[in-house]
Amino acid sequence: MAEIGAKDVKALRDRTGAGMMDCKKALQEADGDMDKAIEILRVKGQAKAAKRGEREAAEGIVTSYVHSTQKIGVLVEINCETDFVARNDDFQEFAREVAVQIAATGPQYVSEDEIPDEVKQAELRIYEEQAADKPENVRPKIAEGRLRKWFEDVTLLNQEHVNKDKHAGQTIEHMRSAVSSKTGENVIIRRFSRFQVGE
Amino acid sequence: MAEIGAKDVKALRDRTGAGMMDCKKALQEADGDMDKAIEILRVKGQAKAAKRGEREAAEGIVTSYVHSTQKIGVLVEINCETDFVARNDDFQEFAREVAVQIAATGPQYVSEDEIPDEVKQAELRIYEEQAADKPENVRPKIAEGRLRKWFEDVTLLNQEHVNKDKHAGQTIEHMRSAVSSKTGENVIIRRFSRFQVGE
Repeated sequence: MAEIGAKDVKALRDRTGAGMMDCKKALQEADGDMDKAIEILRVKGQAKAAKRGEREAAEGIVTSYVHSTQKIGVLVEINCETDFVARNDDFQEFAREVAVQIAATGPQYVSEDEIPDEVKQAELRIYEEQAADKPENVRPKIAEGRLRKWFEDVTLLNQEHVNKDKHAGQTIEHMRSAVSSKTGENVIIRRFSRFQVGE
Repeated sequence: MAEIGAKDVKALRDRTGAGMMDCKKALQEADGDMDKAIEILRVKGQAKAAKRGEREAAEGIVTSYVHSTQKIGVLVEINCETDFVARNDDFQEFAREVAVQIAATGPQYVSEDEIPDEVKQAELRIYEEQAADKPENVRPKIAEGRLRKWFEDVTLLNQEHVNKDKHAGQTIEHMRSAVSSKTGENVIIRRFSRFQVGE
């Protein structure tokens, strides 16, 4: 087993926000490999998050973002479990980025679960009709694929972060999961409003 | 006819935002009485506003207010007719005060027109039942009176301004009408959202 220095433990802690002992264990398990240790903490964090889903997330913050032109504005409520985490910098930064994302992309729902069944079915029928000229055996797959692509457009959690330099390839769900791991609490985007003048 | 000094005209202009010539005419009509002149300008302003109601108000701004605790937030869209007025200080200040008002009082609708008929009827039935012990001939009046009181609670435009020092007895509709007169444009509170953490 590799010897783990306090300096490495601290560096890992700074990057993940995980506890001292968790960082040390992850580094030992990863044989001192920093990237692997982050991976290990993430996996554990997600395992924890699944358990946390059952706990109540009734604290949190309301935050807003209004574009400098004042033509687009967003209000969003993000929940966590304690007021302590609600005031945490990572949580606050996440809330801010979510508000900017909503302003930029105009999603219609937080997640797929929110889309009414009849809306999903109506959308699927359109894609099935569009695929009518394809061989019958591949039609359902094509339509399903297009429906999935549509989910990515209209649901906030499935969207890629608009800041592609800083968060290339990351979805909002990735970011939500990361802030949940980092803070050790269930983090939920509860609801949002987006107003555009004259729409 | 009273002699109208430039100083009075300027004072009236400062208080109402009306044009120089309108102020002079109003003061002449009011025989130099400042309060009466304001009244005259208001009446004319409202007469103009009624005509303006037919014109389209598709410009405006989205503004937000989040309480310092971050537990309550408001997003509101206010419309006017031109982007010029949207950037006007009085219009901006009105928008800001409306957002603060909504945060403080939590109205459910902008105006009575927005309340669905079945909600109004259900509410009225409650008040009629509450008045069941009163003489039959006064019951409708009592129930109507209570319904009107309820409108004042739940509709933004019928609410009294929360800043009672600065705007004693003024409703939001009074303020809307005043900013409409002052800017010379139709001003409409189009929609709002109010989020309170955990509600």
